[in-house]
Amino acid sequence: MDFQRRLLRLLRDEGPLSRADLGNRLNLPRTRVIAELERLVASDLVREAGPSASRGGRRSTLVELHPGIRFAGVDLGATSIDIEITDGRLGPIAAYSEPADIRSGPQAVLSRVDAILAKLRAEGAYRRLNGIGIGVPGPVSFRDGVPVSPPIMPGWDRYPVRRLLAHEHHCPVVVDNDVNVMAVGERHGGVARSAESMLFVKIGSGVGCGILLGGELYRGSDGCAGDIGHIQVQPHDPVCTCGSIGCLEALFSGIALEREATAAARSGASAALARRLTLYGSVSAKDVAECAAEGDATSLRLIREGGRRLGGVLAGLVSFINPSMIVIGGGLTGLGSVLLAEIRSVVYRRSLPLATGNLPVVLSELGTRAGVAGASFLASDLAFAEAS
Amino acid sequence: MDFQRRLLRLLRDEGPLSRADLGNRLNLPRTRVIAELERLVASDLVREAGPSASRGGRRSTLVELHPGIRFAGVDLGATSIDIEITDGRLGPIAAYSEPADIRSGPQAVLSRVDAILAKLRAEGAYRRLNGIGIGVPGPVSFRDGVPVSPPIMPGWDRYPVRRLLAHEHHCPVVVDNDVNVMAVGERHGGVARSAESMLFVKIGSGVGCGILLGGELYRGSDGCAGDIGHIQVQPHDPVCTCGSIGCLEALFSGIALEREATAAARSGASAALARRLTLYGSVSAKDVAECAAEGDATSLRLIREGGRRLGGVLAGLVSFINPSMIVIGGGLTGLGSVLLAEIRSVVYRRSLPLATGNLPVVLSELGTRAGVAGASFLASDLAFAEAS
Repeated sequence: MDFQRRLLRLLRDEGPLSRADLGNRLNLPRTRVIAELERLVASDLVREAGPSASRGGRRSTLVELHPGIRFAGVDLGATSIDIEITDGRLGPIAAYSEPADIRSGPQAVLSRVDAILAKLRAEGAYRRLNGIGIGVPGPVSFRDGVPVSPPIMPGWDRYPVRRLLAHEHHCPVVVDNDVNVMAVGERHGGVARSAESMLFVKIGSGVGCGILLGGELYRGSDGCAGDIGHIQVQPHDPVCTCGSIGCLEALFSGIALEREATAAARSGASAALARRLTLYGSVSAKDVAECAAEGDATSLRLIREGGRRLGGVLAGLVSFINPSMIVIGGGLTGLGSVLLAEIRSVVYRRSLPLATGNLPVVLSELGTRAGVAGASFLASDLAFAEAS
Repeated sequence: MDFQRRLLRLLRDEGPLSRADLGNRLNLPRTRVIAELERLVASDLVREAGPSASRGGRRSTLVELHPGIRFAGVDLGATSIDIEITDGRLGPIAAYSEPADIRSGPQAVLSRVDAILAKLRAEGAYRRLNGIGIGVPGPVSFRDGVPVSPPIMPGWDRYPVRRLLAHEHHCPVVVDNDVNVMAVGERHGGVARSAESMLFVKIGSGVGCGILLGGELYRGSDGCAGDIGHIQVQPHDPVCTCGSIGCLEALFSGIALEREATAAARSGASAALARRLTLYGSVSAKDVAECAAEGDATSLRLIREGGRRLGGVLAGLVSFINPSMIVIGGGLTGLGSVLLAEIRSVVYRRSLPLATGNLPVVLSELGTRAGVAGASFLASDLAFAEAS
């Protein structure tokens, strides 16, 4: 049975517990709890933390996760590597980020991951890892632990990421899509802590969605659920990178916003954007956000139009799946309250009242940490399952 | 524990099994199987069916569901009541249908349900019912067993359907939305038998969707998942009955098709539809199907346009939830292969190749029986759970 996994998860999520509490929570007799704990103490996963506070009767011994447990959360972005080392309760121990081009291929990128982990180890962040979680910016076969035909990751198709990392670091490894990993991070350490069913919408270079149903990631029949960036929002232009016409992310995403902002700067529609184009040679989503904050009408319009398009897609998905929360994350959350207001307005207006009556639509709380936090969480789940 | 429920479900889904097989399947020791069976025999749910076929060794006693077990599946439509009595294995024993107007209110409709059940009992279809499942054409609070603000069911809002039926018939009762019930029917007795994740799209007066994930109904956070009829498919006209603009079912549904066919008959765009309008005083979706089969270009165009609109919505949902099967059911399946071809064409063209590579899009196999079959299935699940 999976009593050990459940016991380890309880100690991860709730902190030190007495033997008596563990027995009650797992519905196990005292003798069985002691036997299970002995095995976990022997494998350096659990230790006794002294007596619990007295409640009048006999004191019960407190049990906690071993303080030497370490997980690594790795978040590979299109242009960055973020790594965080956590303890057994997923508290951050150390972190490191550096720019990296995912297109330089798996050998180059994964050798940087190994180098960063070696550096963190040398600095004392860990002695050995109990598990690694890694998110990659493309579709993943979760079962096989490999990317599958990832559009922006040349050279990574079916590259054995899980097997190589597990071999190198002698621990269980879980590989998942970056948006799924961020959704898990937000569910367990961020704004969606109580959400049973949650859509995590990442707006970055593209647009994707992580789906949590019943508190668990829903990956779909072929592992590609959440691919909302290519839902058609208008029947005519523009042609998307995927070859279809009128896809959401061809109309609203980091790349689309840069394209439209550049056009507005060149045409003279926005003096503020034109100044930045002259100054920096290009304009980014961040420039649009800053110009909007300064009151630039064109920048505000671009953000509102984007929010309206994304809101329209989300309204349909709310009617369809009736989630209990929507979290907006990814690099474009800097567009902030204007974007959020527009998305909310469309979702609340277009979806069934029953489905939106208690539906918070909020910004990610973890921000850029969502990826590494979710990756560590998935690593701990896997490590605890394999310990059983 | 729920060994009894699992045992009863095994006998329902697989038929008579030997004690030895049951022990293996439930991972229970022989003595425990015998003890569980004794309790179920005492409650008239299970009986011994004689020795199993010899396989060389000692013969094991076959066990089967009691032949007196009866479930009632009730399908309330906008204009009809369909009831089927089944045995424990959900095989049909008797059935009865009659026209009824759901708008005549719960007292009138439920007294007809009671009268039909009494008639079937008098004819010997059952002596007592072990469970009743009932599907209603509107949103339902599954937990409370009541309709909730159902748009086409005046007088039914929060009417205690489950409590009254349970009181009248002295058995457990389950109430659910008609589309959910049909989805369950198709999953367990129809074309979707092996599907793990399935969308059941009902096209009738309106359009709705039943969602099965991991083999189980997904009802959503507020129980209203699957409300795809009000997803916006175009930003301008027409105004929908819900007050929004450009909803799917305002553009394609039984009611929309009748409206457009009538207009085509009146304008002279279709001579075939005009003849039927003159002959019958109105034209229905069935007339459109028949005229299309005779080669009427306008009727074919109406069906294709409808399939294209529905296909566009389904393409987005496929990208989002990555199901393993789509089943098209409801009254408009008479539109047949033309409709199906158009839906398939849009879904296969618009969704991610990974999500459509193994995605069958098929017509319902049970047709009008899907509702009563699903209702009986839900009734048996509940009855077996309550027996444990």
